[in-house]
This record gives sequence, C-alpha cells and structure tokens, in this order.
Amino acid sequence: MRKGLLNVAVAGATGAVGEEMIRTLEQREFPVGTLRPLASSRSAGATVRYRGEEYDVEQLGHDSFEGIDIALFSAGASRSREFAPSAVDAGAVVIDNSSAFRMDEDVPLVVPEVNAGAIMTHSGIIANPNCSTIQMVVALKPLHDAAKIKRIVVSTYQSVSGSGKQAMEELSRQTRDIFAFQDIEPVAYPHQIAFNCLPHIDVFMEGGSTKEEIKMVNETKKIMEDYSIKVTATCVRVPVFYSHSESVNVEFDRDLPPDLAREILSHAPGVEVVDDPGKNEYPMAISAAGKDPVYVGRIRRDDTVSHGLNLWIVADNIRKGAALNAVQIAEELLKE
Amino acid sequence: MRKGLLNVAVAGATGAVGEEMIRTLEQREFPVGTLRPLASSRSAGATVRYRGEEYDVEQLGHDSFEGIDIALFSAGASRSREFAPSAVDAGAVVIDNSSAFRMDEDVPLVVPEVNAGAIMTHSGIIANPNCSTIQMVVALKPLHDAAKIKRIVVSTYQSVSGSGKQAMEELSRQTRDIFAFQDIEPVAYPHQIAFNCLPHIDVFMEGGSTKEEIKMVNETKKIMEDYSIKVTATCVRVPVFYSHSESVNVEFDRDLPPDLAREILSHAPGVEVVDDPGKNEYPMAISAAGKDPVYVGRIRRDDTVSHGLNLWIVADNIRKGAALNAVQIAEELLKE
Repeated sequence: MRKGLLNVAVAGATGAVGEEMIRTLEQREFPVGTLRPLASSRSAGATVRYRGEEYDVEQLGHDSFEGIDIALFSAGASRSREFAPSAVDAGAVVIDNSSAFRMDEDVPLVVPEVNAGAIMTHSGIIANPNCSTIQMVVALKPLHDAAKIKRIVVSTYQSVSGSGKQAMEELSRQTRDIFAFQDIEPVAYPHQIAFNCLPHIDVFMEGGSTKEEIKMVNETKKIMEDYSIKVTATCVRVPVFYSHSESVNVEFDRDLPPDLAREILSHAPGVEVVDDPGKNEYPMAISAAGKDPVYVGRIRRDDTVSHGLNLWIVADNIRKGAALNAVQIAEELLKE
Repeated sequence: MRKGLLNVAVAGATGAVGEEMIRTLEQREFPVGTLRPLASSRSAGATVRYRGEEYDVEQLGHDSFEGIDIALFSAGASRSREFAPSAVDAGAVVIDNSSAFRMDEDVPLVVPEVNAGAIMTHSGIIANPNCSTIQMVVALKPLHDAAKIKRIVVSTYQSVSGSGKQAMEELSRQTRDIFAFQDIEPVAYPHQIAFNCLPHIDVFMEGGSTKEEIKMVNETKKIMEDYSIKVTATCVRVPVFYSHSESVNVEFDRDLPPDLAREILSHAPGVEVVDDPGKNEYPMAISAAGKDPVYVGRIRRDDTVSHGLNLWIVADNIRKGAALNAVQIAEELLKE
C-alpha cells in the first residue's frame, strides 16, 4: 500500500451505501487521490458529489481498476464475484460490502473495533460484515473479553434502508398511499412494509432460517474469532427508514453485573451507552440515524440463566453497518 | 349466573378496547339482555352502536351496576380498583382488562384456551391478561403440554393500538407531519413513534425492566399454572396500528421437532399455523388485524440449546389480546 494519497474506486456509487461511502470518505478526510465512482449501465449519466465537485459515474467493468489502490464494493454479491477479482488483479485492495466472500477462509471479515488485526492476512479482498452483525459485535466484543459469551438470542428490528433506495421509496410511497386510501402494491418486499413487520430478510434457507439470520450466526463467530459462541437469530424488517435495533439476550460464562457491563461499554471503542430509563433515555433508531456510534442501552440482568444480560443495541445500518465500517477498514490499511 | 339473557355493562365503552368489546358481543351473538355502556365524564354525551341501535354512554359510578350480570372493564387500572368492587357488590361478575387484579391470589387470570378451568374459582372478579401475554400462551400451552417449557426469551413488536386511541392518532398525525416536514411533538409516548422503535412499554421498574416486561413474566406463569417456567421479555413499541408480533425463543425439556410443533398447533384451539416460507407465508400484523386467531409461523429448530424452537407469533392485540378474550371468558361463565 502506497503512503500518501490513494486512488479510490467505489463500485455501486449510486446506491444507498455507495453514496454514504463517498460521503464518509469526505467527512473523515480520507486521503483520496483520484475518486472513481462506478456503477452498472443503469446509472449511465449519473454524477456524484465529492468535496464540492461533480464526478461522472463510470460503468463498472473489468478494466475499471487501473491505478486504483482501494476499491470499495457495494454493488451486490454477484457483481462483487464478477468484478472484485479484476480489481485485485489490477493491484487494488478490495473492501467488499456484499456477502460474496465473507465466509471464504482466506478473506478477513473485519470490524476494526473487534478484529482489526485480521486485516493484514488479506490476499486482496477484505469483507465488510452484514449490517446487523457489525453493530452486535461492536457492542458484545468488549463484554466477551470480560466474561466469555456462551449463547446469544437476538431479534432484530431492521430498517428498510438495508434493502436499498427502492425499498426506502416503497415505505414512503406505501405510507402515503395508505393515507390516501390507495391500494398497496409491494415491489421491494413480498408484502406491505408500511405499518407492518416482516419476519423475512433475504431468502429462506433449509431449516427455515433466512440467509440474514444465518449470516448473523456465522459472521459473529468469524469476527469474534470464537466458534464456541452459540447464536440464534430472528431477523425482522420494520417500517423504519434508518438504523437497525436489536434485542439481544446474552448468556455469559461468569457473572457480569449490569453496572460493570455499562462501565466496560462506556470505554469501548465505537460504543455509546444510552441507558437512563428514569429519564426515558435509551437507544432509538431515529437518534442513531446519521451517527457513527453503536448505541447500547436497556442493559439489565436476565435471571432466567446463571449469568444473563439483556441489551438493546441500535446503530445506523448504512453508516456503521456498511459505509463507515468499510472506510474504517481502509483507514486501517493506511496505518500499515 | 342466570341462564338466558344477561345484562352486560361495559366500563370504558368509548375506548379502543371497549368499542371492540361491544362489537365482539354483537358478532358472537352473546345473549345480551340490557347493554349498559359506561365511561368517564369526559365521554359525556357519547353514544355507541350495538345491533343497529344507538346507546347513550352513562357516566361510570358506584351505582352503575344495578341489575348487571357481567361487567366488562377496560377503563384503566385505577378505575377498575375504584369501581369493580361496586360492581361485585351489586351482584355482577367483573371481567377486568386492566392489570389491577391480575396477580391477586383470589382472582383467576384466564385465557379460555389455556386455563378455562380457573374461571370457576372466582370471587366476583376475573382478570383478562396482558395482550402480549395472551397471544404467547395461546401458542405455547399446547407445546408445553407435549414437551415441558423450561425457558422463554421473547422480544415483542407491539402496535400502538395497545396504548389506546390517542396513540393511534399520534402515529397517524406524526407520520403525516413527517411527510409535510412539520415538527413532531410526542404526547402519547415520550419520543416519536413514527418510523421509530421504542424499547419502552409501560413504566420502568427496579432492575431496569418495564412493567410490561414483568407482566409477561409473571402472567405467563400464572396462566400456564407452572411457576417453573422461566421467562425473560423485551417489549418494544413499533409503528404499526394493529396486532402485536412476537419473536419467541423456547427451550423445552425434551425434543419437539418443528414438524410436530406445527402438527400440534394446527389442532390447537384459537391457533392458526401460517408457516410456508417457500411461498412467503408467515404471520404478519396487517393480516392478523381484525381477526380472532393467534397466528404462528417461522417455526424452526434452535440448535443452540438441547431442545430449542424459534417461533413468530402474531395476533390482534385489541381482539384476542383484549376484547375477544374478555367475551370468551363471559361465554365460559354462560356455560356453567
């Protein structure tokens, strides 16, 4: 990796995450030499703004990566599978937000607050984990270091921005249509999302779990580098635009009193404790939107197991759950 | 209890649950002699419709219950505490939807599909359980009979109708205001509910759990008549008008394969299994709204414990969670 300025490509530059990646590069003053926004031919003619200038979006192709140092991918798993190898061949390090390579043995799956050390084992591709997983491990790793986690039961409340711009427009349109007594036509989701909850994120797999639920199980173990942690997940889409919320029940191998958990988390990187029920203060989707931290609250003992805690974990799924985490990985690359 | 027609009072007749109680009495052709709708002085002059006729709402008082056989109460815990004893003194059986008497030792807490037998132990008052608890026990009792439940971890997705009409208007108004770029002023809830999730239902208690969460723990044990069942709950308000959804993780004392659970539930009273992920069929708030059954789906093995299942349970919180359950209790009284 060259010192100084880096040439950065963003594949999927017109999507919800791609736009946020470019915004995050700017906000964090990443030392970008050339910015190369890439997208499919559907986005032909589009432009993106970066540091006050308009950039034409180029069509993503195998020859898009000449001179690129870092390629941020958020264009879906199939495009990552097709084009990431070309980026690597051209000498770029790929930071991929899709699920394409996450479970590959030679691809590090990284949340910098949790396992930054894994980055340097890469062979050209570093994977950005699933949004729901990122915020959970940022909050749980510091607790795991204090009292080993045996089992996690998580239920999610995931916002529509996780499904991209079309889904956000769909929640907006359906909501207006309902108030206008119009019929609802679901497109982005199989059913109405406005004023509803869908226990269905990504496709259903054998055994009845969704791919999203299986991602949370497998990615948590890989990032935490502990395959003894047991995870069961139920992933649910809710009519919220930004931020995922998670109800997380954790069983530890020794006592971890809520006060100690609060103390540990108040010093943990990337975490902000919001936990004053007496003042009606707890993490919420609307307060996390557009923010960097993973917010943790409602920390309380679960006395139905020997060493249990319940937590409520909220983060902006587009920022820490995707764009910010990818840029943080790029920043780690810079340090080396 | 007299055979034949019964005189029925409804205290809280102008509220969301009270209105549904009257509608349910009509729909189920309950043998009502005289209907006496009661409410506080704030509802002075209001009328309710029953079987095509308008009834004046009378002011709830200690002398409201002369000649009444059954008094359905849904006017809040403090009014139940004040006026239910007067109804009992006047010879009525009170079916109380508030939390006032639920945990009293001499008050049966009844979900007819689960513990109808408890009704006849009453001394004038029968309590209707909390809405989130009702739907959970209707779904879990038949499974508990097949394989004893050791522990339940439940996270709820509760609709605003559980907080009454004002909260429903607030979700509606806030949603419109957001689309009109107006400022939001929370009244019914401490924070914005539109496009948000609030991990806060009822008041916070010592230990950091809410009263709603503690209700789910205690009421489940009392209704299931098994104090060895361990329950930990996280109760969350979501921007949905009708129906509560619940992500329920259950640990049994012996193996209960998902297929057997589905088979048992498909014959269980008050339950409808909706569980065909391949066809995108699972319980949803919008499909449960206005319906009687408790819908169960997403039934799948949780292999992080010896004998675990995950379930997704949805029901209309105003119907089965409140009005219908109360009228079903009244029907049980009729049978005796």
